[in-house]
Amino acid sequence: MAAKASERRLRTPEEYRESLRDGRRVFYRGEAVADVTAHPVFRHAVEHASLDYAMAEDPATLELAVAPDGYSRYFHVPRSADDLLARSALIEAATRAGKTLVVLIKEIGTDALFSLLAMKRLVGEPYGARIDSFYERCRDGDLAVCVAQTDFKGDRSKGPSEQDNPDAYLRIVERRPDGIVVRGAKVHTSVSVNANEMIVLPTRAMTANDADYAVAFAVPLATPGLTLVASPYLSTKDKRPAEFPLSAERKMVETTTIFDDVFVPAERVFLAGEYEHAGELARGFVEFHRFTAISYKLPLVDALVGAGLLAARVNGLERAGHVRDKLAWLISWAETLRALTHHAAERCRQIEGIAVPDTLLVNIAKLQFALGIHTAFQYVQDIAGGLLVTYPAPEDLEHPDYGAALRRYLAAAGGASGAERLRVMNLISDLTAGEYGGYQAVLAIHAEGSIEAEKLTILAQYDRDGAINYARWLAGIDDARGSAS
Amino acid sequence: MAAKASERRLRTPEEYRESLRDGRRVFYRGEAVADVTAHPVFRHAVEHASLDYAMAEDPATLELAVAPDGYSRYFHVPRSADDLLARSALIEAATRAGKTLVVLIKEIGTDALFSLLAMKRLVGEPYGARIDSFYERCRDGDLAVCVAQTDFKGDRSKGPSEQDNPDAYLRIVERRPDGIVVRGAKVHTSVSVNANEMIVLPTRAMTANDADYAVAFAVPLATPGLTLVASPYLSTKDKRPAEFPLSAERKMVETTTIFDDVFVPAERVFLAGEYEHAGELARGFVEFHRFTAISYKLPLVDALVGAGLLAARVNGLERAGHVRDKLAWLISWAETLRALTHHAAERCRQIEGIAVPDTLLVNIAKLQFALGIHTAFQYVQDIAGGLLVTYPAPEDLEHPDYGAALRRYLAAAGGASGAERLRVMNLISDLTAGEYGGYQAVLAIHAEGSIEAEKLTILAQYDRDGAINYARWLAGIDDARGSAS
Amino acid sequence: MAAKASERRLRTPEEYRESLRDGRRVFYRGEAVADVTAHPVFRHAVEHASLDYAMAEDPATLELAVAPDGYSRYFHVPRSADDLLARSALIEAATRAGKTLVVLIKEIGTDALFSLLAMKRLVGEPYGARIDSFYERCRDGDLAVCVAQTDFKGDRSKGPSEQDNPDAYLRIVERRPDGIVVRGAKVHTSVSVNANEMIVLPTRAMTANDADYAVAFAVPLATPGLTLVASPYLSTKDKRPAEFPLSAERKMVETTTIFDDVFVPAERVFLAGEYEHAGELARGFVEFHRFTAISYKLPLVDALVGAGLLAARVNGLERAGHVRDKLAWLISWAETLRALTHHAAERCRQIEGIAVPDTLLVNIAKLQFALGIHTAFQYVQDIAGGLLVTYPAPEDLEHPDYGAALRRYLAAAGGASGAERLRVMNLISDLTAGEYGGYQAVLAIHAEGSIEAEKLTILAQYDRDGAINYARWLAGIDDARGSAS
Amino acid sequence: MAAKASERRLRTPEEYRESLRDGRRVFYRGEAVADVTAHPVFRHAVEHASLDYAMAEDPATLELAVAPDGYSRYFHVPRSADDLLARSALIEAATRAGKTLVVLIKEIGTDALFSLLAMKRLVGEPYGARIDSFYERCRDGDLAVCVAQTDFKGDRSKGPSEQDNPDAYLRIVERRPDGIVVRGAKVHTSVSVNANEMIVLPTRAMTANDADYAVAFAVPLATPGLTLVASPYLSTKDKRPAEFPLSAERKMVETTTIFDDVFVPAERVFLAGEYEHAGELARGFVEFHRFTAISYKLPLVDALVGAGLLAARVNGLERAGHVRDKLAWLISWAETLRALTHHAAERCRQIEGIAVPDTLLVNIAKLQFALGIHTAFQYVQDIAGGLLVTYPAPEDLEHPDYGAALRRYLAAAGGASGAERLRVMNLISDLTAGEYGGYQAVLAIHAEGSIEAEKLTILAQYDRDGAINYARWLAGIDDARGSAS
Repeated sequence: MAAKASERRLRTPEEYRESLRDGRRVFYRGEAVADVTAHPVFRHAVEHASLDYAMAEDPATLELAVAPDGYSRYFHVPRSADDLLARSALIEAATRAGKTLVVLIKEIGTDALFSLLAMKRLVGEPYGARIDSFYERCRDGDLAVCVAQTDFKGDRSKGPSEQDNPDAYLRIVERRPDGIVVRGAKVHTSVSVNANEMIVLPTRAMTANDADYAVAFAVPLATPGLTLVASPYLSTKDKRPAEFPLSAERKMVETTTIFDDVFVPAERVFLAGEYEHAGELARGFVEFHRFTAISYKLPLVDALVGAGLLAARVNGLERAGHVRDKLAWLISWAETLRALTHHAAERCRQIEGIAVPDTLLVNIAKLQFALGIHTAFQYVQDIAGGLLVTYPAPEDLEHPDYGAALRRYLAAAGGASGAERLRVMNLISDLTAGEYGGYQAVLAIHAEGSIEAEKLTILAQYDRDGAINYARWLAGIDDARGSAS
Repeated sequence: MAAKASERRLRTPEEYRESLRDGRRVFYRGEAVADVTAHPVFRHAVEHASLDYAMAEDPATLELAVAPDGYSRYFHVPRSADDLLARSALIEAATRAGKTLVVLIKEIGTDALFSLLAMKRLVGEPYGARIDSFYERCRDGDLAVCVAQTDFKGDRSKGPSEQDNPDAYLRIVERRPDGIVVRGAKVHTSVSVNANEMIVLPTRAMTANDADYAVAFAVPLATPGLTLVASPYLSTKDKRPAEFPLSAERKMVETTTIFDDVFVPAERVFLAGEYEHAGELARGFVEFHRFTAISYKLPLVDALVGAGLLAARVNGLERAGHVRDKLAWLISWAETLRALTHHAAERCRQIEGIAVPDTLLVNIAKLQFALGIHTAFQYVQDIAGGLLVTYPAPEDLEHPDYGAALRRYLAAAGGASGAERLRVMNLISDLTAGEYGGYQAVLAIHAEGSIEAEKLTILAQYDRDGAINYARWLAGIDDARGSAS
Repeated sequence: MAAKASERRLRTPEEYRESLRDGRRVFYRGEAVADVTAHPVFRHAVEHASLDYAMAEDPATLELAVAPDGYSRYFHVPRSADDLLARSALIEAATRAGKTLVVLIKEIGTDALFSLLAMKRLVGEPYGARIDSFYERCRDGDLAVCVAQTDFKGDRSKGPSEQDNPDAYLRIVERRPDGIVVRGAKVHTSVSVNANEMIVLPTRAMTANDADYAVAFAVPLATPGLTLVASPYLSTKDKRPAEFPLSAERKMVETTTIFDDVFVPAERVFLAGEYEHAGELARGFVEFHRFTAISYKLPLVDALVGAGLLAARVNGLERAGHVRDKLAWLISWAETLRALTHHAAERCRQIEGIAVPDTLLVNIAKLQFALGIHTAFQYVQDIAGGLLVTYPAPEDLEHPDYGAALRRYLAAAGGASGAERLRVMNLISDLTAGEYGGYQAVLAIHAEGSIEAEKLTILAQYDRDGAINYARWLAGIDDARGSAS
Repeated sequence: MAAKASERRLRTPEEYRESLRDGRRVFYRGEAVADVTAHPVFRHAVEHASLDYAMAEDPATLELAVAPDGYSRYFHVPRSADDLLARSALIEAATRAGKTLVVLIKEIGTDALFSLLAMKRLVGEPYGARIDSFYERCRDGDLAVCVAQTDFKGDRSKGPSEQDNPDAYLRIVERRPDGIVVRGAKVHTSVSVNANEMIVLPTRAMTANDADYAVAFAVPLATPGLTLVASPYLSTKDKRPAEFPLSAERKMVETTTIFDDVFVPAERVFLAGEYEHAGELARGFVEFHRFTAISYKLPLVDALVGAGLLAARVNGLERAGHVRDKLAWLISWAETLRALTHHAAERCRQIEGIAVPDTLLVNIAKLQFALGIHTAFQYVQDIAGGLLVTYPAPEDLEHPDYGAALRRYLAAAGGASGAERLRVMNLISDLTAGEYGGYQAVLAIHAEGSIEAEKLTILAQYDRDGAINYARWLAGIDDARGSAS
């Protein structure tokens, strides 16, 4: 029977927020941020992230958000297809409640924890025990955990140890009995300003020369020497929900994360020099994380379908041939992604007792999403019309002189009021034509591994021999048993 | 425990072939065909169709082809997702053995039978009992059953009773106590020349004025007044397997099927005037049949992937960036279709105790297949090279003067011999650049309902209200509970 | 020989700006704007529009911007392909100088003037003489002229006179001896807040019942009863050029334009009730304007190509296969549009002595642009990388503590400094991922007529009979002379 | 004033045919062909090729086919845009008369001759004089000239001299005072079986080690040691025009061309060892030939548009939204290619006094054609319907028993008779779904250089610096003059 959040295995949103006031070193537009929960932009990120905690208290979502053992379901190590489906459903529900923006504060960290747990035998001791211990610490503390993986890389045609800048990849600069000292930086670190712990992983396979770069560990965000430089992209500043229904109050922060000779105690180090495992750790996390990704994309694609349908309705275009064509495409795209996501869970395999979604299907889903989002934007914009970028302001509709006239002109064929129609336009503008849409489009291509990385994985995971053998038999080169005929 | 084919519940291929020598009236290029099993083209169709019988005798496929009750698994009414998956696997295996050409001789008939069984309550008595009885007759006799559905339609903007030509849709011209007399014609009737029974179904929804056109029944192929005019498209004549590895010996025949005042005994009539059910019968069959369709497309898409991989290998192009890109696309397309097919079975619903695959997913799979096949052809042709249409003949490679030189020039980088490379070219030429490829491409667009019909179904089946309500909430029009806010 | 701007046939930028302080009634976010040249957002629009005046003073562009007769070249009525090419070159050059944002302040007005001049014979007197006179007034005064065309339309399945709201289309509510009184509103009116004159045109073909809606005229912007409600979309507020190199200082304003019983003197009325000409006037303007459109899209597509090339360079990806593929696509798209634009000018036809670019080619160019822009965004974003939405702020690079480190990490393979690479990311982010990119994407689909309108025109303009006759001959239906064979 | 063909500067079709009975060594399916003009397949190729001669006799085409100097216009060295446009028009007209199959017998040879003439200064003497002399010989004799360029290449990752098989590329095996002896083979040699002369060119750039492979020359087809092995692809055998309106009587033959120690007299050698010019010769020909290619594709794309329009009409689908959408796409594709072709001629540049079409535009046109043809097939098949592969035979429509019924059923909404509709289906089937369509699709991708080769050329020809500099200015990296700011 499921334990209740009230048994206090889980933190409240307020406890979560309080935990972020710890002296972490964060900068925004060159200025130090004293308290991320009070910052005009970051407070929206904190509020958004609190959703993962609030869902565990809300009776409507409690069952989904809390595992039978009373811990957050995010920390529940998946052992079966059903576990994966439940995790996917939770991620989808949280993002749906988050108005198409993933919450991520528990999702990404547990992806990394699961991949580390699955690698325990590979990396061996003492790392295995440390991984167990760190996993339990995060679960028991109901912590928000972020992941720093991508290095700046410098010249991509060269490996870590071949760079002109020795710090182009994060590296160990000193090994002490009680731990290691690391130097370098990571880019694209999501939700770091409002996480409790940061897991650091290598970004690629490495060679013997790269041993100092083969490093994985975890640190609290307030660790000395750690600096978070937040990206100013997609500010919530001066945006009101009436005009920006998604992006006025929804926010995820990415940082450039600088390690200025940061000391990491031994018990928090999960890899330190075993270069032969760097690639596996890099890939392992990404594979877990891509399943999270395709789960959290579903509310976004649903929103695009719904926005298209709604725009067709308020514009009186539901019967137009080209509109129906575009809607059928949008639905097919969305439901294909949903089917691939669920099917990937159902076709999971076991690694060290952990259920891992089907890698091929996960990557195909991710690729189909990435290849489709710009077309989806085009279609929804096409149905919505030019008002997307020429709409009046919400205040205009309330103006004593001309507001009534505006509302009447904007009123739509299908009975939608002018105010409703304006809200639909504002939604679609926010969703597809402004910074929020651009943010989602760029994430589609680059987050959780780029399109090209997905293609590589698809080629690697597919049963190429099976397909080639079938073609050889069809061509009359081999007989049905695969022997040359 | 499964009964054996040797218990004689199933027919042998020879019995099947013998059953076709029954005096049916078939024409090919204006000439009467006395015996379809001996005709230079049709004999390949008969041979191909025999696969469905041969698989029930082959120990390697017996378990798949024969249901536990000893009947052909094709006749096994699906009651669960597992039944649907098994049926799909059988259809895929038969088509795979049939070198990417569907066998269909039992597939399509049972699709129609299942849809009739699912409609029993709808159409009521005496039709229900007749449907049961006819189903048992087909199953017990292990019969080959085809389906005639598509009418010529004349002016598509008008209904059956509004046409200038009253026979543009098949109709009842006389009602007798012991049966009905029908007149008209059907187009695109597959495998009719080598089936035992033909089920006839309406092609669309109808109105009260169309009552005479609302007709469904079954007749043996040798029924008086029934004329089959076979299409000459894609002849096997003069084709040798060495040059046309797929189409030299694989053949499916379509006919224009003319009903010249054909009498149908009452016990074989399943609808006769109840116009309000015509649409349901039309759609019901198509929906079952589309699941067959997406199952039998899988070997074709696998062949395209395999051909692309094999061409890349024999051309020494496996590392070329653009080739890898195209291969990743081919794999993603193929495996998306497979996932959608399996997932549609797993998400089936029950209608009158019959398991029906998820309609939305089936149609999306069918649409994605249809929209992708021309791109697949383009990519495979691109990887294969110009030799597809400039290759020498197999005889040339054996020529005493220049054969050895040709073989040496054709030999590929990856160790493939000249003869092997030529076979790969011939396979891809047959698969994508000649009549066989064209046949598959046109079927992709038009068979089992056109692309446009699939789009209609997708729009109708999707939970549009759910998506719209989510968008309305996001836009701030409604609160989370769906009430206007 | 060309007259100089110094001969005072042309206004200076300062004169232009001064002319806008005339008491026009403009609202922004519900607040009245006293002086558009001083408003924090509109002043950027005014500044941007001044380019059309500044170019006539700049020795480098004077020859292009000033016609041989000393008037602005924008007002030069095209008589030949060379005139059209020169006009296109001027529009392209102005937009290029305007950092991919069209200036439009003279472009769109002269499109409308030319189309009216071409319709003189059609609409007859007294309209013809008024058109001449108004054209001369604009040319001689070197005026900035905007166009209000699109009505709100209400229920699109109904005509103007069938609407529930009689003002859904702009209409004549009173006819006086000295002029007419009009009521209604127009949407999507570009550059109206900073124009001198507004030409008003009907938006579609009309019937006899719509006579009151068949109205065309011109009014100065400060006319009583005229209210401009500006869209808040794409504000320049708080944007700095270092972070938003395009949109921080470039701005075009669209308004909803309300006519509250506006009196128009007779000499400014160009159509008042002759419903049979409404369609021609609507289409005529759009056709001229689409040639302007494809001319002013060229700097934008060049910028996308250049941004892709530059991103490939600073990211060290110039040799990556998939990057080269995307670059080849971008170049082909851009140069196809340029070729179609120039070819459309070269294949112009004469209407009333005015050179009109080839309508079919203009519409094809416009359609190819609209269909490609989302793909272009996708490709450029793919090459640029995730930094597009995770970049640090320009201030961060200057920070005394971590600025130097950031600059070093950001430094690129090809010798680009960290600051340069950040500028490239900011450019591409502005160009494709934020409001400016969204603005351009939506304009691509909807401005100057929607994609669907372009398809209609393409179908109407193409020589369908020629193509059908060729197909009939190929099919053996007709002989080569077109007679049935 | 144009000389008349009757002045005997041009050969008659009969003289052309007679010239092919010269003892050339040709094989078809392993059998020697004594007389290509009498062979059941090749005679169609000869007949088709005769068009180039017949047009010079037909008063309707004489002016286009004969240059003012009385020679065939094909041999007219283009000196201006008008010359290129006339050449393009001639190629288009010949292909149009040839029912979408290019004639090529003069087109390809003159492409090679012009490219050699343009290289005269580059290759120097004695080659230049020989080129002049050979050009005059071909022109004066009104000869049919083919080109053998593509080598088998073996392992594509290695150069000619690095291959295991030293003959993978054609090479000089002996140098004598009076000429050279060559050994090897060429693939994809078009119209060789019915040409008079064969020009042989290198296929790629070479290094000093490849000197023996850097060879260009010309030989008559009946030269000892030269063997032509014809491809059996797309046989006219047993095809009747009523069913295959294009491919029953239209034929182009490709051969594998084997050089078994062929002696080439010195005066026919145009390059023999000057490896540094091999690449230029290879590219030069291809560039000329691609302009021919885009000219001869126009009737094919027109036929696809016309077929789509005609199918829409006979199927009563002219008003269907999705059909209009597809037709608009087809028209836009076709007319974009036409515009690019003409514009490429108009923007020609001069090389050694020869007008060379704009390389960038030619390659873009070729690429857009290649990328579009499969979509065009899909769309036309979609409009045409399933009858494409299920149609009855022409004989069936004449059958005394059921022919009248068939004709009535097939009769279409728009007044087209059943026989007409069948002809339309047969045309589209031939054009898109059978071997002829496949032939055209594969040629689209691979002939005159592959898609990938076109992309390389596009990247090389485009003014990348111009685009990059514009992007750098926009990004604020450089000021407007291109200096770093």
